[in-house]
Amino acid sequence: MVGGGQLARMTHEAGIPLGIRFKLLSDTPQDSAAQVVSEVVVGDYRDLDTLRAFARGCDVITFDHEHVPTEHLRALEADGVPVRPGPDALVHAQDKGVMRAKLGEIGVPCPRHRIVSGPEDVVAFAAEGVPEGTEGDGFPVVLKTVRGGYDGKGVWVVRSAVEAAVPFRAGVPVLAEEKVDFVRELAANVVRSPHGQAVAYPVVESQQVDGVCDTVIAPAPGIPDALALRAEELALRIAKELGVVGHLAVELFETRDGRILVNELAMRPHNSGHWTQDGAITSQFANHVRAVLDLPLGDPRPRATWTVMVNVLGDDYPDMYSAYLHCMARDPQLKIHMYGKDVKPGRKVGHVNTYGDDLDDVLERARHAAGYLRGTITE
Amino acid sequence: MVGGGQLARMTHEAGIPLGIRFKLLSDTPQDSAAQVVSEVVVGDYRDLDTLRAFARGCDVITFDHEHVPTEHLRALEADGVPVRPGPDALVHAQDKGVMRAKLGEIGVPCPRHRIVSGPEDVVAFAAEGVPEGTEGDGFPVVLKTVRGGYDGKGVWVVRSAVEAAVPFRAGVPVLAEEKVDFVRELAANVVRSPHGQAVAYPVVESQQVDGVCDTVIAPAPGIPDALALRAEELALRIAKELGVVGHLAVELFETRDGRILVNELAMRPHNSGHWTQDGAITSQFANHVRAVLDLPLGDPRPRATWTVMVNVLGDDYPDMYSAYLHCMARDPQLKIHMYGKDVKPGRKVGHVNTYGDDLDDVLERARHAAGYLRGTITE
Repeated sequence: MVGGGQLARMTHEAGIPLGIRFKLLSDTPQDSAAQVVSEVVVGDYRDLDTLRAFARGCDVITFDHEHVPTEHLRALEADGVPVRPGPDALVHAQDKGVMRAKLGEIGVPCPRHRIVSGPEDVVAFAAEGVPEGTEGDGFPVVLKTVRGGYDGKGVWVVRSAVEAAVPFRAGVPVLAEEKVDFVRELAANVVRSPHGQAVAYPVVESQQVDGVCDTVIAPAPGIPDALALRAEELALRIAKELGVVGHLAVELFETRDGRILVNELAMRPHNSGHWTQDGAITSQFANHVRAVLDLPLGDPRPRATWTVMVNVLGDDYPDMYSAYLHCMARDPQLKIHMYGKDVKPGRKVGHVNTYGDDLDDVLERARHAAGYLRGTITE
Repeated sequence: MVGGGQLARMTHEAGIPLGIRFKLLSDTPQDSAAQVVSEVVVGDYRDLDTLRAFARGCDVITFDHEHVPTEHLRALEADGVPVRPGPDALVHAQDKGVMRAKLGEIGVPCPRHRIVSGPEDVVAFAAEGVPEGTEGDGFPVVLKTVRGGYDGKGVWVVRSAVEAAVPFRAGVPVLAEEKVDFVRELAANVVRSPHGQAVAYPVVESQQVDGVCDTVIAPAPGIPDALALRAEELALRIAKELGVVGHLAVELFETRDGRILVNELAMRPHNSGHWTQDGAITSQFANHVRAVLDLPLGDPRPRATWTVMVNVLGDDYPDMYSAYLHCMARDPQLKIHMYGKDVKPGRKVGHVNTYGDDLDDVLERARHAAGYLRGTITE
């Protein structure tokens, strides 16, 4: 696996019972996954020679993040190394311009969007969104760098031509999107193997704070069966049309009028699937491993009525140890997942999962534990 | 953790979400746990200097097996290294003579037993077991080496003075025990932390084949509540009286007349607790880690009506890969746990867990998968 973050850490954990020998390409020996994996190569994933040396002896290469240059992936494939997901699929999770073009082509509903080349272009894009016969300039508009963004980075909500100038300063391509009037965000997680077997997890509700995933509720409360089915089918269709191998997370907007629009794609285990570790028969990590190795997939169904995941972000309190003890003592059913990272403000350092029959109780327990670990709740 | 077997492998797996950095002392770099752990020291646990060097920088030392010499553990403790379970507790799992003496002292029901020094002694011991007014020589009798036995090794069922000579050939102390007329074997698994918090898992039924654990059913089918409670209380009392820290497995005989007698003790995660990985809220491995680090313990209650564990033993078919694919395809709910070991006849190379509401179905699925992996079932 390329990338030593928490996704690699948890993928290794899930691979142990499957008897999988896991090799890691990590930026540093201290990275989250490097702390727990036996075979670690420290090196730069942007360097093709490093990638080639790492790939030697691997049966398959997969990823903790989307940042490996597409051309390097093609070079590895040309060397005969199975790369899963392959570069032709992964590019849709790397480049939002390519993703929007492809989803449009296969008829998947997306927010209105266009590649823009400067603030005037953004003003024109905004104006086109003003319904006929109404006033206004069409702002706010969402601007995104087409490559390299994550967790709210590389995303701007701009309200004027002046604000629209900011994203262009880096000189990278920018995608403009309408700001969708959504009632909530959903995520449809599916896993697909090379020979085309696919499974769909229940559609979840994903709550963001400052552009970063905070809480995930599985399944999405009150979601009509037809809408859930539509979202699952959409994700399965995207996985198939794009040739995804492994885990695919489709982040969705649920609009006020009951439609779903695709927001983002991720082709790796995803924060919106962390609940599956304790809430599903087979976790997203185990199914990602099974898919990339072309093993039969495991049952994605839930084990509990409700499962809630809340991220633990770092705050101003670097030592979580006493909070960690408190949370375990307060709730012996709490499932804690720590990433072995130093605490820094805003950094994802872990998450907690809770499950049960009473959603209010399950939510309270997860939120209390995450808040206590973060230091924002002290009693 | 001292010892690189599957128990260390699964303990590391359980420690990852807790954020635990795991260091391993392994006989070889290929051992089951050494394949998946970041920090591995290869060395001989019988060598005190090796143990001392390994212990440097560890917050606590624990064990995958009971074979570290008691005097070395005392030396480590004298160096100021927390050893959990400590030597005063662990000796009861290392030395069956010490264990029987202690259990007798605290009033725990055991099979009739005595340290014997030769075949004549065994004949006398056997004769004492013949009920007054009945005929017979009192054989069969069970003979055990007091140290070093496991999985049926170091245990003999002897039927005559001639057979009774065999165990004495090695020149090590031998314990004679009555052969208990049991209806089944049970196991009571408990975990205790240094400050005395303790949890009890449901009492399970353990089925042995040729002295090796084959199937575990959780909870023990049809067990009367009073008997289950008695077994749990017994295990908790033993843990407390012996000062156990970590996981304690108490293997029990259920007699025809409804009594329970202690067969063996193990102070580490135990084969009779492997079902907890998929069948309990907190696994035995996670609770062992929590206990030895003096973290609050997790909830030991079951997550399913029935959970069944069946061991996968090696047979004459060294390549399990196609069977592994078959089992995952046949039963997407199957939980496979492979140890990364080469297949050798009779060697434990993995286990499977299944769970559900229908015991017959759960048993059939686990037995089919284990038999198919072993190669003894081919359709």
